[in-house]
Amino acid sequence: MDKPLSVVLASGGLDSAAAAAMAASDGALALLHANYGQRTEARELKAFHAIAEHYRACERLVIELGHLRRIGGSALTDTSIDVPKGELEREGVPVTYVPFRNAHLLAAAVSWAEVLGAGRVYIGAVEEDSSGYPDCTEPFFSAFAGAVRAGTRPETTIEIKAPLLKMTKGEIVRTAIELGAPLELTWSCYKDEELACGECDSCLLRLKGFRDAGVKDPIAYRGA
Amino acid sequence: MDKPLSVVLASGGLDSAAAAAMAASDGALALLHANYGQRTEARELKAFHAIAEHYRACERLVIELGHLRRIGGSALTDTSIDVPKGELEREGVPVTYVPFRNAHLLAAAVSWAEVLGAGRVYIGAVEEDSSGYPDCTEPFFSAFAGAVRAGTRPETTIEIKAPLLKMTKGEIVRTAIELGAPLELTWSCYKDEELACGECDSCLLRLKGFRDAGVKDPIAYRGA
Repeated sequence: MDKPLSVVLASGGLDSAAAAAMAASDGALALLHANYGQRTEARELKAFHAIAEHYRACERLVIELGHLRRIGGSALTDTSIDVPKGELEREGVPVTYVPFRNAHLLAAAVSWAEVLGAGRVYIGAVEEDSSGYPDCTEPFFSAFAGAVRAGTRPETTIEIKAPLLKMTKGEIVRTAIELGAPLELTWSCYKDEELACGECDSCLLRLKGFRDAGVKDPIAYRGA
Repeated sequence: MDKPLSVVLASGGLDSAAAAAMAASDGALALLHANYGQRTEARELKAFHAIAEHYRACERLVIELGHLRRIGGSALTDTSIDVPKGELEREGVPVTYVPFRNAHLLAAAVSWAEVLGAGRVYIGAVEEDSSGYPDCTEPFFSAFAGAVRAGTRPETTIEIKAPLLKMTKGEIVRTAIELGAPLELTWSCYKDEELACGECDSCLLRLKGFRDAGVKDPIAYRGA
């Protein structure tokens, strides 16, 4: 292999496109996407493939993690679980949320990275967006990196990179644009698949990011 | 909940039945099984449900991890990966093996344990059987436990228990029998589904365990 290879967890959204742009400035990309029965699964997958083509990813892998929804689904009926507060969280824990979810995504990325000989795994996690989910914090990523060191071959070195973790959405948009990320190919809406709704939590976060960065979002919104 | 609850990763084989027996002596059980396209998937699942019924498991969950095989499958074409040696390893890395596999299983068990409020996750990993796989060692389980502490809610406490890790197959058989584990319901063969073949690595390991324990294996073998 000529260039160092990174595995990037890529949902097809804004954050993972920014993470892919950062990884691409550093070497070749292998892009990994997880379906877990989200409503806009097909649209996200389309965005994933468009981003993979843009970056000429040398490998792509799409995996099915339907049990994330089945396990997380139980949480919705469990009244002992607190509903996060905040202006963007009007309807409680997202149905796709599952405790310890990032461990599932990282486990898949690390297994694949070890098979491919990739030295880095990028995840576009953002602390600000995550309502304090413990699997979206520096202590978690750092502890998981310890499990990766212990649980892979002695000659394997895989770094876990979460470069957006402490960034605001505005900073992410600016960084992505500076690095030439194809934001017009990304999809963030988790309600609609033709035109972004502009109203769901994910659209609101994205629009706020573009507003804070002082840039127009290149994708089309319903009624805009 | 009256009794403490444990999530047990249960393949339907001898080791996980022993782990379930140990967990059952300690409280109630939630049994988790993963399919990943193994040849004897249906037979293993039957064993899993029989064991769950035996222990009156209060919860059961069957998840699909087909990507384990797809990721691991690549390893078979990668000549840079060493083939483990040993009398029981005649044909190289099992097709179902994937680097860092136990991280996938534990991630699912931990997510589910957090949703259920279970305080322990049992995995029937055995170091002796695993040809030195790094994700089947005490340092890995201990590092993963750190990721669990950091990546779950502050009020969540989930212990990772791998009580068979340092045991021989003979010790596992003896312990399982002492605890009354229903070994007649377990399935270890990964070649056949009607009568165990008695020839595959998994059958050979199992038979050696019963021989070392001085006990007759209660399941039927082809030609026996």
